[in-house]
Amino acid sequence: MPVLVMKFGGTSVANLDRIRRAAKRVGVEVAKGYDVIVIVSAMAGKTNELVGWVGETSPLYDAREYDAVVSSGENVTAGLMALTLQEMDIPARSWQGWQVPVKTTSAHSQARIEDIPPENIRRKFDEGMKVAVVAGFQGVSPEGRITTLGRGGSDTTAVAFAAAFDAERCDIYTDVDGVYTTDPRICAKAQKLDKIAFEEMLELASLGAKVLQTRSVELAMRYKVKLRVLSSFEEQSDEAGTLVCDEEDIMESKVVAGVAYSRDEAKMTLVSVADRPGIAATIFTSLSEAGVNVDMIVQNISEEGRTDMTFSCPTDQVVRAERALAETKEKGVLNFAELIADTDVAKVSVVGIGMRSHTGVAAKMFKVLSDEGINIKVITTSEIKISVLIDRKYMELAVQALHDAFELEKAV
Amino acid sequence: MPVLVMKFGGTSVANLDRIRRAAKRVGVEVAKGYDVIVIVSAMAGKTNELVGWVGETSPLYDAREYDAVVSSGENVTAGLMALTLQEMDIPARSWQGWQVPVKTTSAHSQARIEDIPPENIRRKFDEGMKVAVVAGFQGVSPEGRITTLGRGGSDTTAVAFAAAFDAERCDIYTDVDGVYTTDPRICAKAQKLDKIAFEEMLELASLGAKVLQTRSVELAMRYKVKLRVLSSFEEQSDEAGTLVCDEEDIMESKVVAGVAYSRDEAKMTLVSVADRPGIAATIFTSLSEAGVNVDMIVQNISEEGRTDMTFSCPTDQVVRAERALAETKEKGVLNFAELIADTDVAKVSVVGIGMRSHTGVAAKMFKVLSDEGINIKVITTSEIKISVLIDRKYMELAVQALHDAFELEKAV
Repeated sequence: MPVLVMKFGGTSVANLDRIRRAAKRVGVEVAKGYDVIVIVSAMAGKTNELVGWVGETSPLYDAREYDAVVSSGENVTAGLMALTLQEMDIPARSWQGWQVPVKTTSAHSQARIEDIPPENIRRKFDEGMKVAVVAGFQGVSPEGRITTLGRGGSDTTAVAFAAAFDAERCDIYTDVDGVYTTDPRICAKAQKLDKIAFEEMLELASLGAKVLQTRSVELAMRYKVKLRVLSSFEEQSDEAGTLVCDEEDIMESKVVAGVAYSRDEAKMTLVSVADRPGIAATIFTSLSEAGVNVDMIVQNISEEGRTDMTFSCPTDQVVRAERALAETKEKGVLNFAELIADTDVAKVSVVGIGMRSHTGVAAKMFKVLSDEGINIKVITTSEIKISVLIDRKYMELAVQALHDAFELEKAV
Repeated sequence: MPVLVMKFGGTSVANLDRIRRAAKRVGVEVAKGYDVIVIVSAMAGKTNELVGWVGETSPLYDAREYDAVVSSGENVTAGLMALTLQEMDIPARSWQGWQVPVKTTSAHSQARIEDIPPENIRRKFDEGMKVAVVAGFQGVSPEGRITTLGRGGSDTTAVAFAAAFDAERCDIYTDVDGVYTTDPRICAKAQKLDKIAFEEMLELASLGAKVLQTRSVELAMRYKVKLRVLSSFEEQSDEAGTLVCDEEDIMESKVVAGVAYSRDEAKMTLVSVADRPGIAATIFTSLSEAGVNVDMIVQNISEEGRTDMTFSCPTDQVVRAERALAETKEKGVLNFAELIADTDVAKVSVVGIGMRSHTGVAAKMFKVLSDEGINIKVITTSEIKISVLIDRKYMELAVQALHDAFELEKAV
């Protein structure tokens, strides 16, 4: 029997009615002849409640106990989903992470899946079980303790199962009906994409399009898992949603697939830094050791042996960055006049694998923004992405203008 | 190090504040030099919520999935309790049933503990851990699936750990401050008992005094575990609460230790049954096969070859009993004129190990009830207990009169 993996997020299993609706979707695939592995999240809100209790009990909590507590929400949904399927006369049973087992590293609260031996579940499929319901987001460490995979980790669980069972496809049911050219709340012309390449999805995911956990896309790309994002709130055909797939499976790829944005980025400028070899290494080593995730970096032209160094990082790491640089300055290994933090910025990016073969995308992007009177503060590029930092008040305008300029309303 | 087992029920861990208060009690015992095993229930209300979801999803649920779902509440409390203790600088960690492992039978939702290998937890104690927090009520079957022990099962978990670790004592923290001569809500003169024998507690527990799960008392009696029931809502000395212990540890036992009652009993009468050998076997086999728990049985004197047969059973099994007897009648193996169910009755019992050596307790009980004008419908006795079925409206009166007559207000 071919295997299909179906993952239902928190809003798709938020109550018993929704679990029943999700189970019906599973029933449709079982009727087609699939052996189905269902990955479930906790009922919407449950994980937040548990995380809140842990934080209130112990601000600097033991991550092993955090994992033991917050993993419990998924166990509840898994059992309820199995019962719902049984009520529909579909042979089903639930599995907790340790029962499969989903073997992970010991990095509690952000563990990585190392192995999923398929034997136990396969044996049950052979015995006539049609659906294995697996609690997402969790696994078991080599020490036999419960681990979790980080927020959104159920997506990664789903892709890892699809890889381990060589599944025909991995369907991610969520509260949106696919991946859009940009956020429809900001740009009314946003179009749902029928297909998107792994690389593009990876850039979009890490740029703040919160449809899929970044790691799940990486994993899907590595193991060539066909990933489909679709809504659990609508009747679905086989072509519904957005297929995240290999570049080669997309007949004609557009130059730009989508426009992404992020409000959670801050711009930090070190004013008047001595411009000498090794100074960038000093700055970014100290930031890295402090756990600051630096994204964009720009160095001004040097004047009289001094320069300005600008970088961006998540807004909630600004204080940490300031402390780290102040300490480095105190040690005497770094000298600067001032550190200016600007949290009133936003990052806007255009993404598309077509950029590899098409020139002029960057030039076009800069012209569009300039025509709207939007000043670009920092630029960063990759092979398939161009990102700019701009004043936050222009964010929506920039997204709409770029969406128009690259004719994404014609996308499909 | 001597081991102490401390069990906290649902109301004692109902929120983070109460968990903190319970943790402080644990801290007191750790300071005395004990290695402590803490058994926790789910936060009050959580298990009922989960049971409700299961019932709504699947009225005739798969007990294996029921167990997977309802066991999750205890896991949350165990993790939060471990974190709370860590915040108090007490080395602690949580254990779920399968991690210990608590090995049980496969009788899901009413499994029995078969073995608790102490090695894993002992090793941690040897390494410096002071408190093992164990999720109560749950275990793991030989098939590797999660089991639960039935409502109130955390008491049994606690006693089983006390036996497995040869603990000095097993303290059951609850919302009452001990075992009383009768229910203080019904009889203002009720007195807390300092000590009570296992056998007496067993009769009281199964008669409806909901302080301890019956099976936990059986287990404590078999393994000679000193069991103490005390309140988690008061400052406690070493002599607080009620010690449930071996008969020999009670210096001077009273003839009657307590008066128990139950409103959940119904009286069923089969009118005009043919009085021939084997007829009682026919009746009670059919009831037993239908899962009806028959408690008391009375057969009237036979007249003209026919008799009336009266028995009692829990009120929620009346319909089941009626159906079973009607079916047996249809098969032609049983003949009766009428089946009368009377749910307007109550059972009142006096319990005491002193009855073994004292005569006249039954006679005194019947006289007290008769003096109050209370008619006795059915009587049943054991070596240390006399129970009567009476009209429900007289229940409180009967309890108070018996409490007075046996001078239980002088008990201690």
